[in-house]
Amino acid sequence: MLFMFLRRSAVTFHPLIRYFSTFENSIAELNKEMESVFGEPPSNSNLSPTNGISVAQEPHFIPPRTGENVQGLTHISSSGEAQMVDISSKESSKRVAIASSKVILGKKVFDLVSANQIAKGDVLSVARIAGISGAKQTSNLIPLCHNISLSHVRVDLTLNEKDFSVEIEGEAATTGKTGVEMEAMMAVTIAGLTVYDMCKAASKDIRIMDVRLEHKIGGKSGEWSRMK
Amino acid sequence: MLFMFLRRSAVTFHPLIRYFSTFENSIAELNKEMESVFGEPPSNSNLSPTNGISVAQEPHFIPPRTGENVQGLTHISSSGEAQMVDISSKESSKRVAIASSKVILGKKVFDLVSANQIAKGDVLSVARIAGISGAKQTSNLIPLCHNISLSHVRVDLTLNEKDFSVEIEGEAATTGKTGVEMEAMMAVTIAGLTVYDMCKAASKDIRIMDVRLEHKIGGKSGEWSRMK
Amino acid sequence: MLFMFLRRSAVTFHPLIRYFSTFENSIAELNKEMESVFGEPPSNSNLSPTNGISVAQEPHFIPPRTGENVQGLTHISSSGEAQMVDISSKESSKRVAIASSKVILGKKVFDLVSANQIAKGDVLSVARIAGISGAKQTSNLIPLCHNISLSHVRVDLTLNEKDFSVEIEGEAATTGKTGVEMEAMMAVTIAGLTVYDMCKAASKDIRIMDVRLEHKIGGKSGEWSRMK
Amino acid sequence: MLFMFLRRSAVTFHPLIRYFSTFENSIAELNKEMESVFGEPPSNSNLSPTNGISVAQEPHFIPPRTGENVQGLTHISSSGEAQMVDISSKESSKRVAIASSKVILGKKVFDLVSANQIAKGDVLSVARIAGISGAKQTSNLIPLCHNISLSHVRVDLTLNEKDFSVEIEGEAATTGKTGVEMEAMMAVTIAGLTVYDMCKAASKDIRIMDVRLEHKIGGKSGEWSRMK
Amino acid sequence: MLFMFLRRSAVTFHPLIRYFSTFENSIAELNKEMESVFGEPPSNSNLSPTNGISVAQEPHFIPPRTGENVQGLTHISSSGEAQMVDISSKESSKRVAIASSKVILGKKVFDLVSANQIAKGDVLSVARIAGISGAKQTSNLIPLCHNISLSHVRVDLTLNEKDFSVEIEGEAATTGKTGVEMEAMMAVTIAGLTVYDMCKAASKDIRIMDVRLEHKIGGKSGEWSRMK
Amino acid sequence: MLFMFLRRSAVTFHPLIRYFSTFENSIAELNKEMESVFGEPPSNSNLSPTNGISVAQEPHFIPPRTGENVQGLTHISSSGEAQMVDISSKESSKRVAIASSKVILGKKVFDLVSANQIAKGDVLSVARIAGISGAKQTSNLIPLCHNISLSHVRVDLTLNEKDFSVEIEGEAATTGKTGVEMEAMMAVTIAGLTVYDMCKAASKDIRIMDVRLEHKIGGKSGEWSRMK
Repeated sequence: MLFMFLRRSAVTFHPLIRYFSTFENSIAELNKEMESVFGEPPSNSNLSPTNGISVAQEPHFIPPRTGENVQGLTHISSSGEAQMVDISSKESSKRVAIASSKVILGKKVFDLVSANQIAKGDVLSVARIAGISGAKQTSNLIPLCHNISLSHVRVDLTLNEKDFSVEIEGEAATTGKTGVEMEAMMAVTIAGLTVYDMCKAASKDIRIMDVRLEHKIGGKSGEWSRMK
Repeated sequence: MLFMFLRRSAVTFHPLIRYFSTFENSIAELNKEMESVFGEPPSNSNLSPTNGISVAQEPHFIPPRTGENVQGLTHISSSGEAQMVDISSKESSKRVAIASSKVILGKKVFDLVSANQIAKGDVLSVARIAGISGAKQTSNLIPLCHNISLSHVRVDLTLNEKDFSVEIEGEAATTGKTGVEMEAMMAVTIAGLTVYDMCKAASKDIRIMDVRLEHKIGGKSGEWSRMK
Repeated sequence: MLFMFLRRSAVTFHPLIRYFSTFENSIAELNKEMESVFGEPPSNSNLSPTNGISVAQEPHFIPPRTGENVQGLTHISSSGEAQMVDISSKESSKRVAIASSKVILGKKVFDLVSANQIAKGDVLSVARIAGISGAKQTSNLIPLCHNISLSHVRVDLTLNEKDFSVEIEGEAATTGKTGVEMEAMMAVTIAGLTVYDMCKAASKDIRIMDVRLEHKIGGKSGEWSRMK
Repeated sequence: MLFMFLRRSAVTFHPLIRYFSTFENSIAELNKEMESVFGEPPSNSNLSPTNGISVAQEPHFIPPRTGENVQGLTHISSSGEAQMVDISSKESSKRVAIASSKVILGKKVFDLVSANQIAKGDVLSVARIAGISGAKQTSNLIPLCHNISLSHVRVDLTLNEKDFSVEIEGEAATTGKTGVEMEAMMAVTIAGLTVYDMCKAASKDIRIMDVRLEHKIGGKSGEWSRMK
Repeated sequence: MLFMFLRRSAVTFHPLIRYFSTFENSIAELNKEMESVFGEPPSNSNLSPTNGISVAQEPHFIPPRTGENVQGLTHISSSGEAQMVDISSKESSKRVAIASSKVILGKKVFDLVSANQIAKGDVLSVARIAGISGAKQTSNLIPLCHNISLSHVRVDLTLNEKDFSVEIEGEAATTGKTGVEMEAMMAVTIAGLTVYDMCKAASKDIRIMDVRLEHKIGGKSGEWSRMK
Repeated sequence: MLFMFLRRSAVTFHPLIRYFSTFENSIAELNKEMESVFGEPPSNSNLSPTNGISVAQEPHFIPPRTGENVQGLTHISSSGEAQMVDISSKESSKRVAIASSKVILGKKVFDLVSANQIAKGDVLSVARIAGISGAKQTSNLIPLCHNISLSHVRVDLTLNEKDFSVEIEGEAATTGKTGVEMEAMMAVTIAGLTVYDMCKAASKDIRIMDVRLEHKIGGKSGEWSRMK
């Protein structure tokens, strides 16, 4: 089989081996850092340390020692395939995540939304509802995300007249074996897209900026907050 | 009824009236601009020009002349309520929209994703699939978005080693009565969140930046491109 | 085969035959009435007039001449099985349907909702959004309902202080081969359930009353309105 | 900022204050009653007692002391915004809810459905399946409803020949932190709409009547039954 | 009422009674076998042993002693109606299920898929993602299936050049009151359909073969494996 | 960049080139065959004939001349990435597809299902409804499948006592730009899985066999039927 030949031959390339040697160092460093942050190495039993060149029995091209390469990416197996993390053996604990995003409206649209703000059924209210509903759909949208029961979802939208933006903060909570970062991230993203949808007729320059995690509680790693 | 009293009294506040006078001018300006861009005033028969202070028969607080205030926001009715735009009488035409987003990974995660890139099942492949699937879910997530049949969805992800980011471009197309901006925006957002999900164990500093519309074809307004 | 025996023997029961003879008359009458209302007999090629006792080759109990019995029920085939109506050969036309429902709150809850009404994010606004979103989910919930693209969904909720109720009106529209009654009915139902959800902590006596079709445009039968 | 001005000025309106004073009394009364029924005040940490006029930092119109006004509505925050109830700190217990609804068919449609009843694939069977499936979709349809795992859903449909109706009873059960009223209500509603869908060709006078809660077990408040 | 007459008369048919007597024996046998395999008789309180001919009060045709007949089918109540199994009183335990399927491609398509295999975004990768996502949708697709949180889903696809097929293995896991066979079965089915979808342009002779359970852990019955 | 080096070096492997030369011939052959069957080459403008080694600017491993290799797989772009087929420029026509599957029950389960068959709410009825509903969910489950409006879905289940199986036939129809094979395939698969779900307590040996396309109408290629 020719593909195997290619795979084996790749292993003999000296520059590659040198490259991955350097790479391994940065991986080792990364993993240490990850443990200090998360406190829990990925609970993936597939990640055997001896797993490397010997995967030759499958007709895929795999770079040497992929197992180590992608250990930082918990959704990639040692043989390079996408996977859901197995959380069966994790402890159940209370998990909270807070994320944020920002929708830059520009002055004109900002004024329209502000004026509308004092009436009911306004842009921010619809976006809030969409964000909460969206958080509940996370596992249907993010392929490797676990489907979990949420004990709370909160979305807040604030008009910031300094940069004519809508600032969005989203929070998700559960008691379970896996975190809720994606649910919080989804909430602020869908809320932002809903703001965009309701304002897009007034301007095409609206942008959703800086979707990011702000705060995280639970799991072995405990609490984490973004430094300001 | 007390709420009516509040509403009426508000009208007599001189500063408010002056405010809204200024506001009206900027609205009129905006509407002109919108017509030049979209070529189609919102097809909402509720938006009667005489609609203003006379909405007193409903027990809601409504700022004076809301009808005009929010005319730029096609998803808000003249009485201030959220609504889906009625596209029944619009012409059917080919519609295309292209949107983009950018996921800032940082150097370490970027290197992990790059190394993984040559194996199958990698981060970018999963994100591409998630983006395409996400576009098809748009109307389930964005409350006032029409459910339409898409003739095409395309999502491309490129590693940009200059700023250690993943650049995402998404395209949606249909032949129908309404545009597909939201579907393109959804595609690049869900793809970006999937990248985030698969890399989040390696860093909490990943951000999704600058989700925005790039290009648009179809509808009365014809073609539009973001100026570089 | 015993089941066949049962089926055949049933045919010989005189009272049954007499029953169905009477029944057939009322069916014939019904079908005439249906044609005058809908203008279009069900486009279901399975409904052959000769279809009756001869279905003996399948091991199901089927009453004699079921084909005729259930002809008024377009979602039941001549052999008694649930089916989606085949709309392939129907003409495409503009279709609109308006439905209504009523949520009886009682005085105390009514006062709470009314007071809340002037703030944003209130009960009626959330219910409106839920109703619009729900209409788009109709075909996922009603098994034999076609999945169609809606050109418009509208939901209006009004507080009626005479009977301390929320009156809900929902409208759906499409240009296509099948009506949108179910989408309008779904809109007012989901809106009503959302009102219930948001008020249920204040009273368990809330009821959703009288979900019904009010108006219908399109299809061969043209326009229909409920008589007051 | 003008909106702030409006908000503050509103506070000085004497009739309003008098109105809300009266209102507060009825609220206090309601809250007492709620506690006797539910045994658990809304576990919403946002509801600070000092929260009232001082929310002036956000540019929304908020009536004076909204916090108290809408305390009976657990899905409305003290600042008047829609929210999901945070159930993180609630006790887990077995929860059951039973709801009912009634579809008035009229004599002709009732006879059709009855005749069909003895064949397989009949109206009531399809509606039963739709009701069970619908209950599982509740959190996708009701925006502020928690997504939970159900341990049981039951739907029963009975033909009542006295008023030519279909009587529907639905039951949902879970072991968790929140009740399942909405799931039981959704089950009987979707079942009712499915009956409507399958019979609508035969009559436009079909109505879904009296969707309501019948029975409830679990949570701090224990058992509750509707009085006959 | 005529239908009742039919039902009663049926009971007097001797051949039927004889038939069901034989049938009962095979049922009793089956139930014993089921207990040895599952260790848990269906936890359905509706299945009372005395339930049989006495269900005459409902206007449905029911064969004599249906209650026993269908006891092996846990989703059928003693009165013959489809139902979800009530798992409220089951013990929570770790549950795992592994299923498999096989897609016969034929030599030409097999070669195409193999060649594509070494590039990213290939057929097998997309199918893997679809299988994982599909498992999470199980309860939306299988009417009487419980909606549960999965702790793990795994899908593996292997090219088998001996019979030019794709072999698919899927695993699902949860900690809960009900098994995850359906989730594992759904995973391998949706993965197989995705392979079909991506290859169908190259051949119409592709078939999905032999979708089946391979292994099962958890519940009272403990571990089970298909004999090779 | 090392990955590029790998890619280029691969091109110089003589055996590979010889392999792909052979491969190209079989591809050319396949494409001819596909045109005779489908009458329409994939409408994918990305598939430029000159596309091959020159894709070096992206850091992916790509085998030489992938463009041609996977031309038979319409969902793979010339650069090896998964994609939705762009149907924008296809003609709209009536499309019908019929698929089939077979669930092997074994004698004992077959007898249980047969006995249940004469009651309402039986296994086959529930499976029929699930199959119809499943077909409408196709585009949510198959990542690269277009979301389309179906004009008809039909599912029939027949007990075959010769091999103790349930034979399932499913049909989907639309008027549009893309075929409905996947919808028909999904219908028979979900129906089969539902049969499995309802019978799995009685036996673990149930298998779903031979899911395949039977018949196809529409598109440029006209009519096709599987040869018996």
